[in-house]
Amino acid sequence: MPTDAPFAYDGLDRTIHEKARLGIMTSLVSRPKGLVFAELKRLCGLTDGNLSRHLQVLEDAGLVRIEKGFEGKRPLTTCFLTAEGRKRFLDYLATLERVVKDAADAANTAPVERTLEPKAT
Amino acid sequence: MPTDAPFAYDGLDRTIHEKARLGIMTSLVSRPKGLVFAELKRLCGLTDGNLSRHLQVLEDAGLVRIEKGFEGKRPLTTCFLTAEGRKRFLDYLATLERVVKDAADAANTAPVERTLEPKAT
Repeated sequence: MPTDAPFAYDGLDRTIHEKARLGIMTSLVSRPKGLVFAELKRLCGLTDGNLSRHLQVLEDAGLVRIEKGFEGKRPLTTCFLTAEGRKRFLDYLATLERVVKDAADAANTAPVERTLEPKAT
Repeated sequence: MPTDAPFAYDGLDRTIHEKARLGIMTSLVSRPKGLVFAELKRLCGLTDGNLSRHLQVLEDAGLVRIEKGFEGKRPLTTCFLTAEGRKRFLDYLATLERVVKDAADAANTAPVERTLEPKAT
């Protein structure tokens, strides 16, 4: 990757950047005691199937740890960010902050040249 | 999508959120006079093939306009954000700012419970 590529954003780890997984990571980062599956599903607005699939990707990448246990006789799945997951999420966030800053700066400083655009009808 | 899903981030338009396309949109938003293909490729650290593919997705979505012309006898491709592309990018950015804020707040306020994590070796 050329070093003169300011908008390549190599720090935007694709494992975390995917929209559903970004929601999962954000939900988990504030919960050192973990979140149960049903609550995580609600917070992220995901279906059972989608949440399971994305958790698997995050677990395979070592970012999330999943514990299967019981609450009484009911199976209970609890999800945690790993120490590595927390570190990588913070690195990701630093890049994301840079993206937001770059983009906001660019959008705010550039004049809109209306002559280049056909009028919307 | 349930309304009680604070981390669903429905505003994170997948067309724009994809990492390479996010770089392209950020490059273009500050350039109302457009960017030529080679310069865009350099800024985003993409190959010819990847840039072409992602530009096609953005053009199909109405976010980007591509003009093919000549500079002398050399073919010259110039890329512009459309008015719709600019509007949707700004909407996307507003959501992205919320993600960064949510995540930074969560990461900063949550104590790290080291007892839950096996020590890294």
